[in-house]
Amino acid sequence: MPRFVCRSAEIMRTMPDLHSERERLFEYLAQFVTERRRHLFEDRVQHRTRHVTVVLEDIYQSHNASACLRSCDCFGVQDVHIIENRYTFSPNRDIVLGAMQWLTVTKYNQREHNTRECYQVLRDRGYRIVATSPHAADCTLEQYDFRQKTALVFGTELEGISEVARREADEILCIPLYGFTESLNISVAVAVCLHHLTWKLRNSDVPWPLSDEEKLTIKLDWVRRSLGKRREALERQFFEQQRR
Amino acid sequence: MPRFVCRSAEIMRTMPDLHSERERLFEYLAQFVTERRRHLFEDRVQHRTRHVTVVLEDIYQSHNASACLRSCDCFGVQDVHIIENRYTFSPNRDIVLGAMQWLTVTKYNQREHNTRECYQVLRDRGYRIVATSPHAADCTLEQYDFRQKTALVFGTELEGISEVARREADEILCIPLYGFTESLNISVAVAVCLHHLTWKLRNSDVPWPLSDEEKLTIKLDWVRRSLGKRREALERQFFEQQRR
Repeated sequence: MPRFVCRSAEIMRTMPDLHSERERLFEYLAQFVTERRRHLFEDRVQHRTRHVTVVLEDIYQSHNASACLRSCDCFGVQDVHIIENRYTFSPNRDIVLGAMQWLTVTKYNQREHNTRECYQVLRDRGYRIVATSPHAADCTLEQYDFRQKTALVFGTELEGISEVARREADEILCIPLYGFTESLNISVAVAVCLHHLTWKLRNSDVPWPLSDEEKLTIKLDWVRRSLGKRREALERQFFEQQRR
Repeated sequence: MPRFVCRSAEIMRTMPDLHSERERLFEYLAQFVTERRRHLFEDRVQHRTRHVTVVLEDIYQSHNASACLRSCDCFGVQDVHIIENRYTFSPNRDIVLGAMQWLTVTKYNQREHNTRECYQVLRDRGYRIVATSPHAADCTLEQYDFRQKTALVFGTELEGISEVARREADEILCIPLYGFTESLNISVAVAVCLHHLTWKLRNSDVPWPLSDEEKLTIKLDWVRRSLGKRREALERQFFEQQRR
């Protein structure tokens, strides 16, 4: 899937017509959602970023899975990578219909080495891979150089990140803790990191927003999801009109 | 209860003997816990603060209650005020035995106006009462003047803070959100606020640590909890030795 996205982005750059056709498709489909929702798409996409992305490895409690996705949406982090080595990621149904439908979620559960596969995909996209751990870290959240394109890896509820996730990361990051409890709840750790890094990003000159091409792809995705079952018929209609 | 604490602090200042007796009591009891634990008490109490305190109004899901207490402990926030108007606060048993035993928890559930009673107690202690809300706020978390002694109020999972909690607060604060979801999970909101404010405090010249008197009171409380059932007999022993 990620390979396809890259190639299609290249095609878009070399074939401006295709881009404008996709723009026309978005305009066409957007007629069938409410004005309010369309306005929401245009606004929210401006705040989305891929400068920070989240990797969740073997999160299995549904309330944690749900809260993680909700935080990604709230802080404008578009991409979530879900590694299912031992456990299935199962957010509550309400969240799947809510926050999750506005995110670009990629799952890794087909291979023997899902964590490695995920890391490779992220490295190909230029991410620095930063695993989080309450113990023995290279750097604290507050010291971390947020200017780097960063994939933050969070591990399973009880044991944290896997040995592979730790060993193959570029850096280990911790949130400084001052109490008796040795770690934060997983969904809390995700939110604290995302809030801190995206707040710094939004107040910096780092080019964190999406490109116009990415914005269009995501808006198209959003409008398609909003249309549900009507989507296919409407797209067919659009392409028939184009051919005339 | 808070009145008593204030008076006893006054007595302590005017009667240094009583303070040193409490110090001797701590030294005596600390012999019966491990060296490691004693060291932990001495270290952790240095990081505790009352500059920020947390008020939880009608949080009823046990995983949220648990995660809130865990975050308070992790970020060194000593006092938690729990208002039970409609729901009982019921963290998981593991957390009650873990994070919760190191916090000073006050419950308000006996009156008709528990929220008002809690606000009054906090005002008497010099706190500015800042209710959190995802909507219509006076100020954002990041803009908030963390130098003020602050009680942060968080409301119930679905509906947020009550009308009374909102109306009688000094200020309404929000965490800026950029997604489709209109609010963060409650335990996530607590952690994001505490991380941000305590991080700023620890890097400021605000006198956020506890007084020596407060540190001693809390260490005594910790060592007593650690001793469990042995506590009473050991304290009796100590006072008998003192009388000789």
